[in-house]
Amino acid sequence: MRLRHKPWASDELKKRDHIVIQDPKDIAGKWKNYFGNYKKIHVEVGTGKGQFLTGMGLQHPDVLYIGVEKYQSVLYTAMERVEEAGLTNVKLLSEDVADIADFFEPGEVDQFFINFTDPWPKSRHEKRRLTYKSFLSLYERLLVPEGEIHFKTDNQGLFEYSLHSFSLYGMVINNVSLNLHESEFEGNVMTEYEEKFSKKQMRIYRCEAKYRAKN
Amino acid sequence: MRLRHKPWASDELKKRDHIVIQDPKDIAGKWKNYFGNYKKIHVEVGTGKGQFLTGMGLQHPDVLYIGVEKYQSVLYTAMERVEEAGLTNVKLLSEDVADIADFFEPGEVDQFFINFTDPWPKSRHEKRRLTYKSFLSLYERLLVPEGEIHFKTDNQGLFEYSLHSFSLYGMVINNVSLNLHESEFEGNVMTEYEEKFSKKQMRIYRCEAKYRAKN
Ligand SMILES: C[S@@+](CC[C@H](N)C(=O)[O-])C[C@H]1O[C@@H](n2cnc3c(N)ncnc32)[C@H](O)[C@@H]1O
Ligand SMILES: C[S@@+](CC[C@H](N)C(=O)[O-])C[C@H]1O[C@@H](n2cnc3c(N)ncnc32)[C@H](O)[C@@H]1O
Repeated sequence: MRLRHKPWASDELKKRDHIVIQDPKDIAGKWKNYFGNYKKIHVEVGTGKGQFLTGMGLQHPDVLYIGVEKYQSVLYTAMERVEEAGLTNVKLLSEDVADIADFFEPGEVDQFFINFTDPWPKSRHEKRRLTYKSFLSLYERLLVPEGEIHFKTDNQGLFEYSLHSFSLYGMVINNVSLNLHESEFEGNVMTEYEEKFSKKQMRIYRCEAKYRAKN
Repeated sequence: MRLRHKPWASDELKKRDHIVIQDPKDIAGKWKNYFGNYKKIHVEVGTGKGQFLTGMGLQHPDVLYIGVEKYQSVLYTAMERVEEAGLTNVKLLSEDVADIADFFEPGEVDQFFINFTDPWPKSRHEKRRLTYKSFLSLYERLLVPEGEIHFKTDNQGLFEYSLHSFSLYGMVINNVSLNLHESEFEGNVMTEYEEKFSKKQMRIYRCEAKYRAKN
């Protein structure tokens, strides 16, 4: 049974504070060594129910994965997934992506993932798209030099827009795949949305966008 | 009947020297006023049989269109099309794109078109793709500042590669369409290849790539 409204989610999330970090501000600058010794910090924005992050956490035990998701009801499912898999290298933040500069120090993040983010198709909502320039600038600040964003979506309009936005920001677009599941890309971990859309025979789009070195 | 080999093409092309320009070097720097008074010079590289250029020429009489095609046998068909349409604003060059710096002065071209160019899928042939960096640099030299390339293809791999190549060159990618014939793009003129592939229900990809102002 799927529970749409979970008024109790907030309390339950607090009880799992080893997975859902309650005060991420306190860990800013210290993520790599706070829960062990990790080589890399990878952050997913708009994590949803955590299928991607759980899969990635299992594949790469030396990476600390941090998922940012603003809705507690979906984050609850993500928390359950991490708990069931017994993963210690996946942490969740019940936060808005717009606030992430409070949770990481500049240069602390090795990579960002954006998966199947809300397309906000109306032009007047452009600023809400997680590939809008203000977000690109936020990620850049927190990333290592020449850091990367790995981006997947089923939404053609959002992908078209994001290619524009990345290039306008001066980023280099690498490993574009206009039909991911028919491509030679290896090690793909599906997200919940990816599984749903690919069952409907929809194409999945993917690319990597890399920041340029600052002069 | 379709003639694959046209040994007589060379002579026939020379007879139509008002359409197929025999000594384009002599016109370098003078294209705008040589055949009348044109506001813009638009160049298509790899013109093929000229369906696109003829269609564009009819739609935009104040633009001078110049098509560059290295195979005389296909250029012959393009020449026939231009002649039949009675167009004076479409000229053809029986030349290799690699040589175009000889035919135009820097800043003389207002726009380039690349349509359904050969994909050269093997990595070792990358340098032959007309969206490879050496070609991007050639076009940039001949274009007005912040000039544009308008690019269409049916070939997924070539489109993926070209998005990478444009962004690596620092260009801004605008108006991406991952399914041109289902998009809102207006005034599209189909090329021969476009007509052929769209009949097979294949997607047509399109984008515009714009050079940045030089500092
Ligand atoms: C369409 S879902 C995709 C979920 C998951 N990434 C997937 O691929 O299956 C987008 C998710 O991003 C979250 N989201 C969107 N904007 C956000 C923001 N500004 N801050 C945090 N989460 C956000 C939404 O709440 C939603 O759960
Ligand atoms: C696949 S056809 C496409 C023709 C046409 N643009 C269309 O869309 O139907 C590519 C054409 O580009 C021409 N071409 C490729 N490389 C060229 C080069 N370096 N110089 C001149 N023409 C070239 C080929 O001879 C061929 O006619």
